[in-house]
Amino acid sequence: MIFPFSKGHGTHNDFIVLPDLDGTAHGDLDPSLVAALCDRRGGLGADGVLRVVRGGVGRRIADADWFMDYRNADGSASEMCGNGVRVFARYLAATGLVDPVELVGPLTVDTRDGVKLVTYCDDDEISVDMGAPKVGGAVDIRVDGRLVEATEVDMGNPHAVVCVDSLSEAGDLLRAPGYRSDQFPDGVNVEFVSASGQNSLAMRVHERGVGETWSCGTGACAAVAATATREQPSGLTLPLAYAVTVPGGVLTVTWDVDGHLHLKGPAVIVATGTFTSR
Amino acid sequence: MIFPFSKGHGTHNDFIVLPDLDGTAHGDLDPSLVAALCDRRGGLGADGVLRVVRGGVGRRIADADWFMDYRNADGSASEMCGNGVRVFARYLAATGLVDPVELVGPLTVDTRDGVKLVTYCDDDEISVDMGAPKVGGAVDIRVDGRLVEATEVDMGNPHAVVCVDSLSEAGDLLRAPGYRSDQFPDGVNVEFVSASGQNSLAMRVHERGVGETWSCGTGACAAVAATATREQPSGLTLPLAYAVTVPGGVLTVTWDVDGHLHLKGPAVIVATGTFTSR
Repeated sequence: MIFPFSKGHGTHNDFIVLPDLDGTAHGDLDPSLVAALCDRRGGLGADGVLRVVRGGVGRRIADADWFMDYRNADGSASEMCGNGVRVFARYLAATGLVDPVELVGPLTVDTRDGVKLVTYCDDDEISVDMGAPKVGGAVDIRVDGRLVEATEVDMGNPHAVVCVDSLSEAGDLLRAPGYRSDQFPDGVNVEFVSASGQNSLAMRVHERGVGETWSCGTGACAAVAATATREQPSGLTLPLAYAVTVPGGVLTVTWDVDGHLHLKGPAVIVATGTFTSR
Repeated sequence: MIFPFSKGHGTHNDFIVLPDLDGTAHGDLDPSLVAALCDRRGGLGADGVLRVVRGGVGRRIADADWFMDYRNADGSASEMCGNGVRVFARYLAATGLVDPVELVGPLTVDTRDGVKLVTYCDDDEISVDMGAPKVGGAVDIRVDGRLVEATEVDMGNPHAVVCVDSLSEAGDLLRAPGYRSDQFPDGVNVEFVSASGQNSLAMRVHERGVGETWSCGTGACAAVAATATREQPSGLTLPLAYAVTVPGGVLTVTWDVDGHLHLKGPAVIVATGTFTSR
């Protein structure tokens, strides 16, 4: 089987884009095909696959322009990916499927986590409304043999944010951190965050089931939510904006007056062609 | 800059193929472009780049059909790559630049290590004459904190082959092994090899400057040379053939009556398209 693909990334969180506009080419995307595409040596290599479907096609009926069918590298379906939806929007603009100049308001992208609002910014970056965080209390996490205190943040997926003076305190983030399964029954993503200046953070992240990654969109949002809440314990004054430096680049996270976090950053398509599956 | 590429692999040793038939498109291949292509998250990702040039074009004047300009992932030029030249030949056949049926004798591919003879086999695998090995004496190598005895083998590049009862004895091969710099002034590739049956070997390899890899063509040849010499200490009876199982697949290494080793295995092109460099 030979079919078209593109490859792109947002702060080095990378994706294979599979166009399937009317949902007939890859409608029931085979997990083994996703795994073959994401295989970094036997295939093209990526953190995940973004299937591009027109809004309202097939099983998805939603008031949205597009549906993003996001799959993890192992082939499993996933709800949402903050960097993924930004690369998804870049693909639409790069191929002419969307003309950002003609858009009235944000682009609407349906996901398994609901409809997301995506904005093409004047500086050529792409921003997505990630919704409101739920900042919880203190939890204990075991990382690299040590017990550290973290702040629980729910961004639709679970996070534990550890505020440190220096990222060197994060140690080895390749191995899965330890946590209490009654606190995180579905596992947890762990962020180490240090202030690197006024409204500027540096972050490293362990993504559950993956390991340390170069970037994590919901992780950057969770880091800002935990840090801002910690810095203004008696109540937040919104809006707030932070630059979050991850190993793969710089993301900007804004907390607006309605309580929503917006993830903004670069998103590029680097290659386009055809893939031969065996 | 937008230009065509293909991606392929041989036993999961993977390469970006850059067509440059008349040597004018990428004549002086920029190391930073090679690194950008091989970047597994920001680019396409590969162990190296194979620039495809017609024989006799530009600075290379050799009695060969093609010139393979091989570059490591960091952009540096390298002499030869056994899996790379097999993927190179697959690309030529897949794109119709070579018709294996019309070939009289082997395909001749010039490299910085001289002209290599490549054969399209009846079972759809591709074989390359890797030349004669030079099997040396015993050397000490330090791996994962232990001192182990190895056999020195020169395949154009330096190898130290450690024969073990089980590959589990190899331990952690990600870290660079220790060696005596007077014995290996340019560093050394280290193979752990165990017999897995009659004329059947299992191998893991640490490639100098890279770490543990899924496959290494010269390493498979060195493993066979050391093993056969050890099994027939009073003189070799040739030809000999071994199946060598590496983490990325199975290679066949034949030692012919002229003393040359032949590396044979699968080689596939998985994707073709255009890359946008920034």
